[in-house]
Amino acid sequence: MAMTAPGILRRSPDGDYVVEATHPVKYGVTVTDGVLQQTLPFPEPGSDRDPLGRVPGGSMRRLVVADREVARLYGDPIQEFLTRHGIEFRLVAIPGGESSKRWKTVRRLCREFDSFGINRRGEPIIVFGGGVVLDVVGLAASIYRRGIPRLIFPTTLVGQIDAGLGVKTGVDFGPFKNRLGTYAPAQWATIDRRFLATLDARRLSDGLAEILKVGIAVDASLFEVLRADGRKVLHESFQGRTDSGDRAAREILDSSIRGMLGELAPNLREDEMARSVYLGHTWSPAVEMEALCRSQRWWLPWRRRPSLLHGEAVALDMMLSAGIALDRGHIDKAEYELIAETTDSLGLPLWDSLLANSRLLARGLRDTTRHRGGRQLAPLPQGGKVAFASDITASEVARAARRQHSLGGRAIG
Amino acid sequence: MAMTAPGILRRSPDGDYVVEATHPVKYGVTVTDGVLQQTLPFPEPGSDRDPLGRVPGGSMRRLVVADREVARLYGDPIQEFLTRHGIEFRLVAIPGGESSKRWKTVRRLCREFDSFGINRRGEPIIVFGGGVVLDVVGLAASIYRRGIPRLIFPTTLVGQIDAGLGVKTGVDFGPFKNRLGTYAPAQWATIDRRFLATLDARRLSDGLAEILKVGIAVDASLFEVLRADGRKVLHESFQGRTDSGDRAAREILDSSIRGMLGELAPNLREDEMARSVYLGHTWSPAVEMEALCRSQRWWLPWRRRPSLLHGEAVALDMMLSAGIALDRGHIDKAEYELIAETTDSLGLPLWDSLLANSRLLARGLRDTTRHRGGRQLAPLPQGGKVAFASDITASEVARAARRQHSLGGRAIG
Ligand SMILES: NC(=O)c1ccc[n+]([C@@H]2O[C@H](COP(=O)([O-])OP(=O)(O)OC[C@H]3O[C@@H](n4cnc5c(N)ncnc54)[C@H](O)[C@@H]3O)[C@@H](O)[C@H]2O)c1
Ligand SMILES: NC(=O)c1ccc[n+]([C@@H]2O[C@H](COP(=O)([O-])OP(=O)(O)OC[C@H]3O[C@@H](n4cnc5c(N)ncnc54)[C@H](O)[C@@H]3O)[C@@H](O)[C@H]2O)c1
Repeated sequence: MAMTAPGILRRSPDGDYVVEATHPVKYGVTVTDGVLQQTLPFPEPGSDRDPLGRVPGGSMRRLVVADREVARLYGDPIQEFLTRHGIEFRLVAIPGGESSKRWKTVRRLCREFDSFGINRRGEPIIVFGGGVVLDVVGLAASIYRRGIPRLIFPTTLVGQIDAGLGVKTGVDFGPFKNRLGTYAPAQWATIDRRFLATLDARRLSDGLAEILKVGIAVDASLFEVLRADGRKVLHESFQGRTDSGDRAAREILDSSIRGMLGELAPNLREDEMARSVYLGHTWSPAVEMEALCRSQRWWLPWRRRPSLLHGEAVALDMMLSAGIALDRGHIDKAEYELIAETTDSLGLPLWDSLLANSRLLARGLRDTTRHRGGRQLAPLPQGGKVAFASDITASEVARAARRQHSLGGRAIG
Repeated sequence: MAMTAPGILRRSPDGDYVVEATHPVKYGVTVTDGVLQQTLPFPEPGSDRDPLGRVPGGSMRRLVVADREVARLYGDPIQEFLTRHGIEFRLVAIPGGESSKRWKTVRRLCREFDSFGINRRGEPIIVFGGGVVLDVVGLAASIYRRGIPRLIFPTTLVGQIDAGLGVKTGVDFGPFKNRLGTYAPAQWATIDRRFLATLDARRLSDGLAEILKVGIAVDASLFEVLRADGRKVLHESFQGRTDSGDRAAREILDSSIRGMLGELAPNLREDEMARSVYLGHTWSPAVEMEALCRSQRWWLPWRRRPSLLHGEAVALDMMLSAGIALDRGHIDKAEYELIAETTDSLGLPLWDSLLANSRLLARGLRDTTRHRGGRQLAPLPQGGKVAFASDITASEVARAARRQHSLGGRAIG
């Protein structure tokens, strides 16, 4: 963990005390292949490059938190991997899925930290899981004793190209997504596509939504690869069963990791609120949470409706943004349709009945506006980049939604 | 809120990605007298110096959180003060006292934030309260939407010379004090001794314990003032009813605020674990929490025992540390007795039956050791400064406790 440069205390001309300091943030990301089969050399003295956080003379005790499904599928290789590296560990499995991303899971984790008796600085938590487990363990670790270090092995596509690369942690609160959280990076992230072999198609598509976002908003050549080979890579679960599929899988992962890190690094704490990577995140938080609610109305089973995955909500929002962009002349009809086709080819929905709920969309936009410090700052696709709009009206949104409905693509709910 | 300097993304020779950034931390402290009667000029454009967070063109909506007792005593002047400055506010009162410093209070606050519809960056929370309210609102504000700004008016002595000056927020969790928290300063703290007029003597003594700590560990001349005039200042509740009492009250407040900020600023995130201001904080967290537990055994009323205030636990711990320092030859008998006398003159206890519980003390030291990254680093008084010990044995502690018992001073439980 990086050391804070000593802060200074000065007296202002008004006689006030002013404290100023800078807090350094540093973390690393390794992209690798088949890490559980590897034997990682013990790090050199002074190096902080170790996915297991080993340091000469340091403690080898680790609390390992794994997504329950990951523990079931990869429990043995993970345990062998840790044992082979001399790690003394206790493994705790917690469920994935959005409904785990609540305070109750943070509380449970903190109890586990207490019972394991974690040292505050020298015994990083090791995490294996998707975005949900990464986010919730991230929050727990970042507030436990005001922050203990953690090392992560993201196991879903969303985790590998998004949740595992930034500094944001969080849980949902009431009906709001990620309402509580911190900015606290994992010290080290190890990205290994072999974990993706066991993800089902819907989950892969889910992650592809965030990749598509980077393709639309930042990196036009990534969009090209997705358009040409996205479906094949999806079909091969990123495992490279054919040469061309392997090449495309690597290219998609590499570009999106690089693109995402390049977008995140200059703006880790969202000081800048006009961000390309907010594309697809203007209405989607409200839509995703509403879909979660509708799926949990279990006491009226006939009213129970499917939930939306994060990336599915993002895809719906991108399409809505593209519709507004089309009406505003930022993109033309052909571009709009190309976005729709590519979205569809990646197994993502083009429509959900929630988009017909104009009150939900208005509420979502209002809350996002608060989150962005008072302006909408909605990114709209515009020739391989985005334009930011802060004057979107309800009737524009409704019109874009109607157009989207008439696309007639795949729908979830 | 300070902006983060743009982080950078680089590629290491091993092919890893490394993200590096620095996060600036900045906050101000005004020491004033009778702020609620003042009319504060609207800040100049570009100035971030306003206890109410007003900026030209910015929102004037504020959620105000006040300690319930403070709201009762100062509700009217606070509301007039806010109205006079054009603030549109909603006031939320929450109870003080250690038992409020729990997650349930954070949850309640976050619901209030939701219902008020706070803007993420431009509508700072305003807080009036003691250390408990400052800590718990601090945690809530620092995780709500990953951090919203806050402005504080500490109303207890502990708040004014300690909790309101640093960057630490927190709540208790299970039997552990401050187990969950963050490092997140209030943007601005306004310290006004007029609030102290309504604190009872025990609460003032409580705060004087932390001041005594600074006197013993950092600032020998502050110790002198405390020894000479501490009792009088306590008697006058820091309000300066006599000239000499006024002078001493100001001197004590000024020195301890300056001393505390000077200690905190270079080390905001406790990267350095050998800290003078940890004096009195080695065994006290466990002692304080145990005292809280014993006071809450309400289903066996005859077993109910008084709780200890934070500063009381700190005073007991300082005396214990002084006893070990005496046995180790860091201080002599006369110095030990002078510390005891001064502690006693400030209305603080010299003994509590919990100090006879050697298992409790051992557990406390063990947990503190974990907190300090694996070493005890217990500060022991030594000629106006401290020496750090990391090899304290149980029998040393027991001996110091026995000596402390035989001092025969005031005891709480
Ligand atoms: N912090 C960030 O910056 C950030 C960025 C993007 C998304 N997110 C968050 O990430 C969450 C979504 O993440 P997610 O899609 O990974 O969901 P998830 O973590 O719930 O994982 C999805 C499902 O896959 C299972 N799973 C995990 N790894 C598996 C594997 N290797 N094989 C088979 N099954 C596996 C899980 O048990 C779960 O049921 C959302 O809550 C979103 O808000 C956070
Ligand atoms: N964050 C930090 O760096 C830091 C430093 C020191 C202490 N603390 C924490 O502070 C807490 C103790 O703070 P505290 O002693 O202020 O306790 P507190 O906040 O509970 O206040 C003590 C009592 O005084 C009442 N009160 C508050 N202001 C008053 C006023 N002006 N007049 C009359 N009554 C008033 C409160 O209602 C409460 O009952 C502990 O939990 C401790 O851990 C934090």
